[in-house]
Amino acid sequence: MILVLKPDASQEDVEQLVAKLAWMDLQGIALEEEGRRTIAIVNGDDAKTDLKQFAAFPLVETILPLTQKFKLASRELRKQPTVIQIGSVEIGNGTFAVMAGPCSIESEEQIFETAAAVAKAGANILRGGAFKPRTSPYDFQGLGVLGLQYMQKAAKAHGLLSVSEVMDPQDIDTLVEHVDILQIGARNMQNFSLLKQVGKAGKPILLKRGLSATYMDFLMAAEYILQTGNPNVMLCERGIRTFETYARNTLDIAAVPILKALCHLPVIIDPSHGTGIRQMVAPMAYAAIAAGSDGIMVEVHPTPDAALSDAKQTISPLMFDEMMTKLRALGKVVDMNVL
Amino acid sequence: MILVLKPDASQEDVEQLVAKLAWMDLQGIALEEEGRRTIAIVNGDDAKTDLKQFAAFPLVETILPLTQKFKLASRELRKQPTVIQIGSVEIGNGTFAVMAGPCSIESEEQIFETAAAVAKAGANILRGGAFKPRTSPYDFQGLGVLGLQYMQKAAKAHGLLSVSEVMDPQDIDTLVEHVDILQIGARNMQNFSLLKQVGKAGKPILLKRGLSATYMDFLMAAEYILQTGNPNVMLCERGIRTFETYARNTLDIAAVPILKALCHLPVIIDPSHGTGIRQMVAPMAYAAIAAGSDGIMVEVHPTPDAALSDAKQTISPLMFDEMMTKLRALGKVVDMNVL
Amino acid sequence: MILVLKPDASQEDVEQLVAKLAWMDLQGIALEEEGRRTIAIVNGDDAKTDLKQFAAFPLVETILPLTQKFKLASRELRKQPTVIQIGSVEIGNGTFAVMAGPCSIESEEQIFETAAAVAKAGANILRGGAFKPRTSPYDFQGLGVLGLQYMQKAAKAHGLLSVSEVMDPQDIDTLVEHVDILQIGARNMQNFSLLKQVGKAGKPILLKRGLSATYMDFLMAAEYILQTGNPNVMLCERGIRTFETYARNTLDIAAVPILKALCHLPVIIDPSHGTGIRQMVAPMAYAAIAAGSDGIMVEVHPTPDAALSDAKQTISPLMFDEMMTKLRALGKVVDMNVL
Amino acid sequence: MILVLKPDASQEDVEQLVAKLAWMDLQGIALEEEGRRTIAIVNGDDAKTDLKQFAAFPLVETILPLTQKFKLASRELRKQPTVIQIGSVEIGNGTFAVMAGPCSIESEEQIFETAAAVAKAGANILRGGAFKPRTSPYDFQGLGVLGLQYMQKAAKAHGLLSVSEVMDPQDIDTLVEHVDILQIGARNMQNFSLLKQVGKAGKPILLKRGLSATYMDFLMAAEYILQTGNPNVMLCERGIRTFETYARNTLDIAAVPILKALCHLPVIIDPSHGTGIRQMVAPMAYAAIAAGSDGIMVEVHPTPDAALSDAKQTISPLMFDEMMTKLRALGKVVDMNVL
Repeated sequence: MILVLKPDASQEDVEQLVAKLAWMDLQGIALEEEGRRTIAIVNGDDAKTDLKQFAAFPLVETILPLTQKFKLASRELRKQPTVIQIGSVEIGNGTFAVMAGPCSIESEEQIFETAAAVAKAGANILRGGAFKPRTSPYDFQGLGVLGLQYMQKAAKAHGLLSVSEVMDPQDIDTLVEHVDILQIGARNMQNFSLLKQVGKAGKPILLKRGLSATYMDFLMAAEYILQTGNPNVMLCERGIRTFETYARNTLDIAAVPILKALCHLPVIIDPSHGTGIRQMVAPMAYAAIAAGSDGIMVEVHPTPDAALSDAKQTISPLMFDEMMTKLRALGKVVDMNVL
Repeated sequence: MILVLKPDASQEDVEQLVAKLAWMDLQGIALEEEGRRTIAIVNGDDAKTDLKQFAAFPLVETILPLTQKFKLASRELRKQPTVIQIGSVEIGNGTFAVMAGPCSIESEEQIFETAAAVAKAGANILRGGAFKPRTSPYDFQGLGVLGLQYMQKAAKAHGLLSVSEVMDPQDIDTLVEHVDILQIGARNMQNFSLLKQVGKAGKPILLKRGLSATYMDFLMAAEYILQTGNPNVMLCERGIRTFETYARNTLDIAAVPILKALCHLPVIIDPSHGTGIRQMVAPMAYAAIAAGSDGIMVEVHPTPDAALSDAKQTISPLMFDEMMTKLRALGKVVDMNVL
Repeated sequence: MILVLKPDASQEDVEQLVAKLAWMDLQGIALEEEGRRTIAIVNGDDAKTDLKQFAAFPLVETILPLTQKFKLASRELRKQPTVIQIGSVEIGNGTFAVMAGPCSIESEEQIFETAAAVAKAGANILRGGAFKPRTSPYDFQGLGVLGLQYMQKAAKAHGLLSVSEVMDPQDIDTLVEHVDILQIGARNMQNFSLLKQVGKAGKPILLKRGLSATYMDFLMAAEYILQTGNPNVMLCERGIRTFETYARNTLDIAAVPILKALCHLPVIIDPSHGTGIRQMVAPMAYAAIAAGSDGIMVEVHPTPDAALSDAKQTISPLMFDEMMTKLRALGKVVDMNVL
Repeated sequence: MILVLKPDASQEDVEQLVAKLAWMDLQGIALEEEGRRTIAIVNGDDAKTDLKQFAAFPLVETILPLTQKFKLASRELRKQPTVIQIGSVEIGNGTFAVMAGPCSIESEEQIFETAAAVAKAGANILRGGAFKPRTSPYDFQGLGVLGLQYMQKAAKAHGLLSVSEVMDPQDIDTLVEHVDILQIGARNMQNFSLLKQVGKAGKPILLKRGLSATYMDFLMAAEYILQTGNPNVMLCERGIRTFETYARNTLDIAAVPILKALCHLPVIIDPSHGTGIRQMVAPMAYAAIAAGSDGIMVEVHPTPDAALSDAKQTISPLMFDEMMTKLRALGKVVDMNVL
């Protein structure tokens, strides 16, 4: 349920109302939507709640339904799409965000070389893993803090923002120091402890969809972050596990229009993990922009075949540049501004 | 294995060679590829076959590998994409085929009205079901032959080709009389008896991917048709079953570039069954053309909500027309000619 | 909805009532349940139907709900489990049916040798494929009628019943001549044309679950057969397709108690296709009987590794014999009589 | 690769050899198998490694292959099954472990009442969640430390061991203080940070299979724990996500014999989460013991319908007691000792 307050309601009024709700065992979250103070009631069963009790609150102007379980992510709560502003970059506002870079940060040279290439071709965000969630404990686990330091320098040198994955609540502070966007990986999408803590880090979050997550699971995971008070969450579809083994995953492009109909958050497509096949990255990026996504996240490496991880799905700077050219042409048709 | 014969090999030579192969328990299929008579050996294990025995055949010029199990569908056999010519329509040759019409043919008026609308908006093939594979025996099973007669008239009146599903070998002759393309539905993709018989009908076949079919299963089903001697097979991706229930199916857009890399057959996308949601049909059609598909198959009904089947995924003539406009604009970027 | 008629209702009364229902666009199917003539109304929407109209029928004693979509298969219609009597064998009545034999009938010797071995160890039904649904058109497609003739002789010689798959409506008559139970394979579970025709063959049907069929799909496929008037349908769980590739399929043992709660038909487990791994056949057969299944279908071959199809999942007569011994011991605990 | 050392090799010799391997960029893990010091080499590519270099080590007696990626979990490394001894309970050694208790610890009374009931019926381990991984942030998140204190008292009072889930590395110490077995939940199966840290806690670990985890994923997650030096890992199959929605999950009973063939760790079945349906818990427990599992984990609550979480899949003490009686009878047939 959403209580829209009268125009003259003050911050103090809101706090008093939230306190009253708490007396009724209802959790009210204060928000401002379309210039009006509102309170979203996020627990309890709307169907069983007596509306008359809210009519007694003189400050309440309108009561709107909030039927979805993902209260704060829901389009019912917020009709306008969320726009995430990071420095001069806006995500969700008609500019197609392009996050590109290696799967793993391997060396200072590698990340600088990649940053230079992707910046030149039009990317605005540098990606790179420093803490790597590898299926095997014997595989390369990432350079850790050192990798983040390299990436921070490389991003700065080329005027890029940066994004990297956080796997452990104890690493959040370190990530916050070095990158602009914190990524939650697919395997941690339902690591609820991490979600609760990462939301409080004060940085935008890129949340990747779990390998077998439904839209509901995905949006409820976003809700965990949103309810910490952090509104800046991006959803990233990166392929789901199916019985097909030729491709690494099955990239669910329909997630773009569906998620955007259900919630107000930006939706990013990762065609690299989504297919696992280098030659399929560009076609799926084209499909992503055509379907209305707010951006892509792509693995690029100066020498893809030598990449320490995800080599098969990593594209070269040249392939990336060609892809960007075609994305710009498609962007014109679908009203997305590709740099 | 592919035996490419010398330029002066005659049809008689080919027949003699196929007979010799049969003596060796090898099945040779005679083809003409790039102006040269060739024989594809489709059984046996290439790795265990002694190549020297073929060197003894004076007519054999080159021996090429044919490693995929789908011998006749494989890109190894045929480098050039298959182009299917039906009347003045070419599928697979840079023109984006648009098959549109109701899920079920319900009445003469309904199919005429739909035909008029989709023809006007730029479709070139009329779709409509007369024999319907319904999950429940108590649901509407289609108008049968009467429906086909209506559709045949409607298609002719509006200069359209037509496509309809065949479910039973005993109905093939009836379908052949009335429609231009025979469709094998998803639930019959591995109905091998039907595949073997439909191939001999002398009409192009639209083969839909089974609900849980891998690419290999799909291509092997196509192979069943191709080995009857019918080269005119189109593959249609229509969504696979996953654990997601919000959408009816998960439309595997990546199947377009992947199947086109593996085989030489045209690939069509069905965004109606692929999503099951009216509002998602157009975005997925845009994704399809951006990813390089050779066409789409879409459910259109004059009054979608009144459709006897698949109402939720059926779009109106107006939505169809708007979609066609945007497809034309996207087609220009990706070099596909949309009528 | 189920109309239970008064004790003195005659067959003629039933026919008149079914005719009256037809006037109301309702399809009534006449049945006898617990000694009373009843009519199951299988179409229409119960929630929207005015019950008063049936009160006007003097012969109707009680009206019971029939909420499931699978009307005739439903436990709501028939509280008692269906028992299928074939010769002296009863399936579904506390005797654990054991169907065993080769994947494909390969020769007269092979099927006789297998029949002898499985009969001696306690099987009561001989299985063997004559028309084989192979993924590849180049694989062994079965011996056809000749195979059926061999199996018929072998079954008779060893006092066994027999079961074999039918793939094409045109082959039904041939199958009926030679075997006691007609099998519908997983790939044809939603081949609705075949289901409609096989039901009329007058033989019990073993219906295998499709690779990605839900319980609802499965029971609706059974409904297609039941509504032809054939009550003798067995359901066979044979593993579903999942993302796991180590095993051929994921055998859904829970389907046994779930299907038996939803419907009144016997449920058979196929641990051979269900796992695809010889060593896993026996443990899964033990799980099947422990979970309450009415029988198993198992692939046995005199020399498993030499089998022309499904070699990896086929067990030897010795393994079969050991398995039967343990099944007998487990049967005593769960009140199933294993021969 | 496994280096089996000569009988007279000392601990010091082992350390020197591990150090030498490190020089060769190989990670050697020292173990004792069948009374002999051995070193498992867990990284590198065996196929590319020159065996001769090890022949130069005078202490090496035999070199055995170690082909699986899960080096320490593999049956190749350890032929004998791992037996986990906790107090007087042995898991993996022929005694069927029964872990029972509520989904969530809700109050002191509730956990005491449950402990009394399950202990009386024959359980040996009390389960109960204090930190709950709930899909929604607005659902009951567990009593936390207070809940653990209640459970610790209840377990002690009734002579039971205890198991509870840990979700955050920061909570490990708290869990260690209060429970005997630490559980990693399905959603955290690939939370690699947590796996690395929980292994060092010095307690046996119950690792639940992820919702879409393959056997390989599952065993690699176990490997993360094993390589911290903790050998006491139990695998728990709790149902995988499929397209079936009637049951909460599809319980993969075949995982029992398959995992036990691949690795030496005990395998536990959770029929509560595995089906999500109260009536299906007992049949699946019977299937589990028949298939050879080392135990079960079951949700029991004094008043199941009033449970704050998982009510639909929770059984009553009475149902639990009846189930235990039948498990004892089945245990006699399959040589498992059920208390």
